[in-house]
Amino acid sequence: MADKVREIFDESGQAIEFREGLEGVVAALSMISSIDGEKGILLYRGIPIEELAAHSTFEETTYFLLNSRLPKQQELRDFEQQLKSHRQVPAAVLDLIRSFPANANAMDLLRTTVSGLGLYDPDSQTNTVEKNIERAINLIASFPTIVAAIQRRRSGKEFVAPQQDLSHAANFLYMVNGEAPSEYAAKVLDVALILHADHGFNASTFTARVVISSLSDMYSAISAAVGSLKGPLHGGANSEVMSTLQEIGSLDKVEEYVMNRLATKQKVMGFGHRVYHTYDPRARILSQFSQKLAQQTGNTKWYEMSRKIEEIMRREVGSKGIYPNVDFYSATVYYYMGLDQDLFTPIFAVSRISGWTAHVIEQLQNNRLFRPRAIYPGPKNVPYVPINDR
Amino acid sequence: MADKVREIFDESGQAIEFREGLEGVVAALSMISSIDGEKGILLYRGIPIEELAAHSTFEETTYFLLNSRLPKQQELRDFEQQLKSHRQVPAAVLDLIRSFPANANAMDLLRTTVSGLGLYDPDSQTNTVEKNIERAINLIASFPTIVAAIQRRRSGKEFVAPQQDLSHAANFLYMVNGEAPSEYAAKVLDVALILHADHGFNASTFTARVVISSLSDMYSAISAAVGSLKGPLHGGANSEVMSTLQEIGSLDKVEEYVMNRLATKQKVMGFGHRVYHTYDPRARILSQFSQKLAQQTGNTKWYEMSRKIEEIMRREVGSKGIYPNVDFYSATVYYYMGLDQDLFTPIFAVSRISGWTAHVIEQLQNNRLFRPRAIYPGPKNVPYVPINDR
Repeated sequence: MADKVREIFDESGQAIEFREGLEGVVAALSMISSIDGEKGILLYRGIPIEELAAHSTFEETTYFLLNSRLPKQQELRDFEQQLKSHRQVPAAVLDLIRSFPANANAMDLLRTTVSGLGLYDPDSQTNTVEKNIERAINLIASFPTIVAAIQRRRSGKEFVAPQQDLSHAANFLYMVNGEAPSEYAAKVLDVALILHADHGFNASTFTARVVISSLSDMYSAISAAVGSLKGPLHGGANSEVMSTLQEIGSLDKVEEYVMNRLATKQKVMGFGHRVYHTYDPRARILSQFSQKLAQQTGNTKWYEMSRKIEEIMRREVGSKGIYPNVDFYSATVYYYMGLDQDLFTPIFAVSRISGWTAHVIEQLQNNRLFRPRAIYPGPKNVPYVPINDR
Repeated sequence: MADKVREIFDESGQAIEFREGLEGVVAALSMISSIDGEKGILLYRGIPIEELAAHSTFEETTYFLLNSRLPKQQELRDFEQQLKSHRQVPAAVLDLIRSFPANANAMDLLRTTVSGLGLYDPDSQTNTVEKNIERAINLIASFPTIVAAIQRRRSGKEFVAPQQDLSHAANFLYMVNGEAPSEYAAKVLDVALILHADHGFNASTFTARVVISSLSDMYSAISAAVGSLKGPLHGGANSEVMSTLQEIGSLDKVEEYVMNRLATKQKVMGFGHRVYHTYDPRARILSQFSQKLAQQTGNTKWYEMSRKIEEIMRREVGSKGIYPNVDFYSATVYYYMGLDQDLFTPIFAVSRISGWTAHVIEQLQNNRLFRPRAIYPGPKNVPYVPINDR
């Protein structure tokens, strides 16, 4: 599994092994999700992701991630109501978004706004489970409102207030576009949100756990996670996939592009994953939505290009375990839904906030400060040479 | 070294060991600092911390951390000039601080302001070494201005603009207090800044490296590090030490307090460290400053209480390797300097920003995404029970 093991001599001259990027290193136990990277299985608290995608909603899945069990009918209704009642964010936070430069990066705006949200929590220094569950619900409910406001701010449009009679996913699309989405669009986004809600110790979730492990606070952990998710080696990849498709431009140029990337040992965006060495189960579900949306919109080009890239990659590097990951088909799904490319990674955050908050709460229940070791392979006891003698 | 090793069965039923909090686990190589926790030795790029504390300045040490070698005279003058020329922060960022609630936590304000700073960097998405060194210098130069502005905002005072003819440490005290400090106060702070500038993969530095490892950006990494530093198991400890001294109240109550904490197996703030199992070399230097400041101010009580706590702890748990850490004496040093307790942890950040930025740049030069493994010890393939049947 961990093929990047390096051997090094430590400070006392002892040979020790270490794994770059902590690949395969167990950082902690977690009851939230589990991944079998060889078989391509993802479970949320034991339930296969396919089951949840087929039968659950984002609201129910979020309840499940936070509370470790599926809600009964009344519990789910109450939870949905709680989320709805927290969709409004403080006016000061909307003013904050209005005060930011309109051309700033959407993830930078989200990171700063989430950090700013902490300034308006009168109990922000209290880390009880109850307070953090309240905060989690508030953050999960607020993220769509904040992301939609950022998107509208960036395109010079007035903010759209949340609507109480729409689902979490439908209301997000409503606040982004200013009109309620079709039932199908809301359904597709709902499933996409379920699929992205948690994924073990991915870099942003691990970030959140590292930050909270000093007994800091939820806002510190979540704003840090947003900053981590932004990177192209993590959540930023879905936007990069779309850029790649646009750069290639047409179906007949796919073969040349992919073969050239492979020959020059460059990454093909949306392929390969630290944990999966087979097909990412989330990509399988998203590819079906991409296909249906392609047919519905009559614009099959982007889906066909994606399939072609997948075929070539399977032929060329499938034996090496390099397969499409979640970002590969989410890109065209969001594109077909008419969502701006700059929204792709923020939408990832709108979903992953459920997992992040569940992990923060879990970490606090059995906390130990994350404080690994660095090996210094340089000279020691170097003298301080006075400035005149340098 | 790693006494918290746990054994667990992984997903495939194999017994594996893991270390809680990644204690003793090598996360990467680093040429920036090295710690010998058994002997109590801290080196910055090979030079013992005592040498730097005795002969260097924060500006020179920062140059050294960023550039891997001590500067020549002209290089140091140029670097000092560069830092001075970046002391001003954008007016929009000062307005941002003014717009925040005055009663917010100082570290929450710092985290949000640093995140906001990224919105005003027109190249914030460019991760070249040159750009990141520029950004590092700008952040290091801006931190005192931002922290001082936050402090004055919280106490309802007008901001004080930076002064060009003062050193980094002296100018910070000037901006906080509205008057230039004594030469001795500036010297003490300068040494404290040197001592806190780097310390291997402490939680906030590790946070910064995890965040940048997705190829995110400097502001994401640094705002995340601020959020991590805030926690009482990390930088927040220096403020907690002062709270402890005030809670005890007088020298004659020290014995009872400490013995009671030990008997009830509670932490004594400022004691013990993940890496040091002997006297923290930084605490040794700071204790001398605390003693001198106690004499100078004629208010020896807090220093004497600290010594007494140290004596009792040495007698009771010294054999277990529990000794004063850097936070234990920095608390009284800052207190004797008349600094507000809420400034203690932000001052840590004013120093550690040098190490954080050096680590971000180092991480990018040999990057691998930090993505460890979680072990899920729960049931698998749990069925999704329809809501009516729950």
